[in-house]
Amino acid sequence: MAQAVEQTLDSFTALNKKIRNYYEAVGLMAWDLRTGAPKKAAESRSETIGLLSTEAFKLATSEEMGQYLSILNQPDVLAQLDDVNRRIVQDVQEEYDRSIKIPAEKYEEFVVLTTQSETLWEDFKHRADFAGFAPYLTKIVAKLQEFIDYWGPRATRYDTLLHMYEPDLTTVKLDQVFAQLRDRLVPLAESIRASEHQPQTKFLDQLFDKEQQKKFSIFLLEQIGYDFDAGRIDESEHPFQTTLNLGDARITTKYLQDDVTSAIFSSLHEGGHALYEQNVDPKLAGTPLQQGTSMGIHESQSRFWENVIGRSRPFWDRYYGDLQRHFPEQLGDVKLEDFHRAVNRVENSLIRIEADELTYNLHVIIRYEIEKQLFNDNLSVDDLPKVWNEKYESYLGIAPPNDGVGVLQDVHWSGGSFGYFPSYSLGNMYAAQIAHTLNKQFPNLDELIAAGNFAPIKEWLTDKIYKYGKSRKPQEIIKEVTGEDLNPDYLAEYLEQKYKAIYDL
Amino acid sequence: MAQAVEQTLDSFTALNKKIRNYYEAVGLMAWDLRTGAPKKAAESRSETIGLLSTEAFKLATSEEMGQYLSILNQPDVLAQLDDVNRRIVQDVQEEYDRSIKIPAEKYEEFVVLTTQSETLWEDFKHRADFAGFAPYLTKIVAKLQEFIDYWGPRATRYDTLLHMYEPDLTTVKLDQVFAQLRDRLVPLAESIRASEHQPQTKFLDQLFDKEQQKKFSIFLLEQIGYDFDAGRIDESEHPFQTTLNLGDARITTKYLQDDVTSAIFSSLHEGGHALYEQNVDPKLAGTPLQQGTSMGIHESQSRFWENVIGRSRPFWDRYYGDLQRHFPEQLGDVKLEDFHRAVNRVENSLIRIEADELTYNLHVIIRYEIEKQLFNDNLSVDDLPKVWNEKYESYLGIAPPNDGVGVLQDVHWSGGSFGYFPSYSLGNMYAAQIAHTLNKQFPNLDELIAAGNFAPIKEWLTDKIYKYGKSRKPQEIIKEVTGEDLNPDYLAEYLEQKYKAIYDL
Repeated sequence: MAQAVEQTLDSFTALNKKIRNYYEAVGLMAWDLRTGAPKKAAESRSETIGLLSTEAFKLATSEEMGQYLSILNQPDVLAQLDDVNRRIVQDVQEEYDRSIKIPAEKYEEFVVLTTQSETLWEDFKHRADFAGFAPYLTKIVAKLQEFIDYWGPRATRYDTLLHMYEPDLTTVKLDQVFAQLRDRLVPLAESIRASEHQPQTKFLDQLFDKEQQKKFSIFLLEQIGYDFDAGRIDESEHPFQTTLNLGDARITTKYLQDDVTSAIFSSLHEGGHALYEQNVDPKLAGTPLQQGTSMGIHESQSRFWENVIGRSRPFWDRYYGDLQRHFPEQLGDVKLEDFHRAVNRVENSLIRIEADELTYNLHVIIRYEIEKQLFNDNLSVDDLPKVWNEKYESYLGIAPPNDGVGVLQDVHWSGGSFGYFPSYSLGNMYAAQIAHTLNKQFPNLDELIAAGNFAPIKEWLTDKIYKYGKSRKPQEIIKEVTGEDLNPDYLAEYLEQKYKAIYDL
Repeated sequence: MAQAVEQTLDSFTALNKKIRNYYEAVGLMAWDLRTGAPKKAAESRSETIGLLSTEAFKLATSEEMGQYLSILNQPDVLAQLDDVNRRIVQDVQEEYDRSIKIPAEKYEEFVVLTTQSETLWEDFKHRADFAGFAPYLTKIVAKLQEFIDYWGPRATRYDTLLHMYEPDLTTVKLDQVFAQLRDRLVPLAESIRASEHQPQTKFLDQLFDKEQQKKFSIFLLEQIGYDFDAGRIDESEHPFQTTLNLGDARITTKYLQDDVTSAIFSSLHEGGHALYEQNVDPKLAGTPLQQGTSMGIHESQSRFWENVIGRSRPFWDRYYGDLQRHFPEQLGDVKLEDFHRAVNRVENSLIRIEADELTYNLHVIIRYEIEKQLFNDNLSVDDLPKVWNEKYESYLGIAPPNDGVGVLQDVHWSGGSFGYFPSYSLGNMYAAQIAHTLNKQFPNLDELIAAGNFAPIKEWLTDKIYKYGKSRKPQEIIKEVTGEDLNPDYLAEYLEQKYKAIYDL
């Protein structure tokens, strides 16, 4: 490599490292605010978070960065770089273009607007006041429409938003897979509703000591291979996973005294996210590629550990005895089969985050269809409640009694995160597709799970997915691992098989 | 105020605020590393701490800052400023001068040297290997001698170091007060040793549940008025207090199963530091004056709450019953008087941090005399163990069996913190002197304590000391509050009276 290029690459690497360091500080401050910072800390802390985020943004869009990119992102120079550095240059270029195209004051306005609207949202939701919230949402959609013009629309305007969360994902593809999925899930849900073999869940309506729940969550996380030397678990209002650096992938959960399953499955869910992050190749540390490659692939790993593994029968064959020992009074007399069926109950409900594995996808499809209409077909924000309610009636057979449990239920739109929701179902689809390959790879998979022997599974996932971080695109990953593109049939099949057994269909 | 001055003042204020924000981020990262960050987080975290500290240093020594100071720090401009802003300008100027006088590469070398030496110190201490450690210490002393030349020596070279921790404190003053103190404490220690009325402490050699200890520490902190909405308590290897912003003054403690008193008194100690910080006037928030004014005054407040209040008889009149209720098995049969005498036992010992209220000061005087010789009289580092051991023999009647429990016991010197130790005794002296005034102010002080009614005490301290933060110098504070300069007789008197009762002298 020419010396000038090498020097530029070194400076470029150092600058990216510096930006990561800023993110690390910001990440810790945000984690702290959500896990136990004193109330009165928040004002100054938010200011500091704002300052350091801005500094990171300035570095990422600096003249210096532009100069490095103009040197490195040339065909003849790219050809001299190794695969990882080539991908870093491309990744940074894309971020740089996205940021630099928006005039700074427009971006600032958007941040102020969404910060304010996110804060107000909770109250509007609480009061089920869509009319009050609509002006904010209208402004946010208008701003994003403006941004799409700056960025340059892709195949459709909404495609531009999708691309931010799942690179190269298109509405054409999503229309196809969601239609395919819906056509199989809606009848499945109907036959489940019609089954006379409904799970009993009464024994879950008891009080479960929080300390014991905590012990059990930590135990399960250790079992699946979460590295407590490279992470920790805390409590927060909404569970989340955050990666501060490759040696520090933290998770949170929430222990509810009257719901023992909540912490179990949220710990496994966030633990799945963390397993991904903890097993990225250390050589990517400090680069923009040190993280999971997309929201969809990330969600596939949280869903895999939460659902495919954590809600499976062999998993509870192995761990139900342990759970009973943690709660002998509450579960001593409850049969394994009843417990397993209870945590797999399917129910048409209003709230996405409480939905089961099956209907969850219908909640997502509804949001996808609405977002697409908003950005591609000029659906007016004021018409959202009507459209929302009709779709719930049509796909799930229930209409929300008010907008608080309807169109206002999710925080995403108030923060401007349009295009994000499909990731959740992508995660489910990817997870089932990957699990299908995994089953071929390990014909004794159920035995491994029933023996609590997760090391080979984690190693396989590390080798195929985790270690690459963001250095491979989601499509590359799914194609390499499973031999084909995203295919919703695997999820449909997985769910059909699963519920056939549970509901005696 | 002229408009140009006003604008400069605004920019200057904003720049200082920004520096504080960096410190807040650095402070949280350091707190996190000491209270539960996963092991593997440390490497990248240290790098991020280094980066942000350097950014803060760059801002504090920037041309921009120099320019603001050159405008604001003019007699006619200062005259237009209010008291607080005048003090800020002077404070920032002093920091600026101190930093700017040291060539950047010299400072960098010093940071690398002391970081390395602090890391190695633990091991040298563990192996009692002074010969191995001496080369590092020699280099550190040489560097500091160089720095003193850059800064310009004060009355003596060591005075320059003292001034950094306790502004305007001199060796002349310290020689005088320490001599006065030593002359009264040495005979007092002797008569205590000779007393036949020695406290029994056997009942402390039991196991005490850590969860119960935690509850009791939190209870006591609430009692003295620590605001848990503006702080939190965690565990760490060495207890400390850190202020991230005025709404976030955190403390840590350590719960030892085999020593119930350790967490009680360290919680009160760190709680005392935190009370000071939590009650600084909010108008100083985000300025360099938002903190306690000096190490000595700060230590006076930790010692006040730990010792003057926390080891007093009325305090345990009020709280011993609560303690017994937390540990009925261990303390149910132990009399209040015996407990109070046990936590006030005086004993000549080798280790400063384990010393009692009385002999603690002798440990400090020894360090002071040695540091003064090192910087003013060219005492060679190689001779330190000999001088150390002779002084322990002479002041405390015991000689360390090895350097690990002798000259190597403290971390301070390895980090270059020469001039710091006197703050500890200053704290004791200030605390006793302030308590003397407080007693005159509240003739019923013992009754207030015995009723757990600390609000009037905290209010008085806030009004006289806390609210000013760093906007008044330590000498001003002590003179204003007590009507005279630092006077060691109050500490001597306090200790004489206290131990007269306990040891029946």
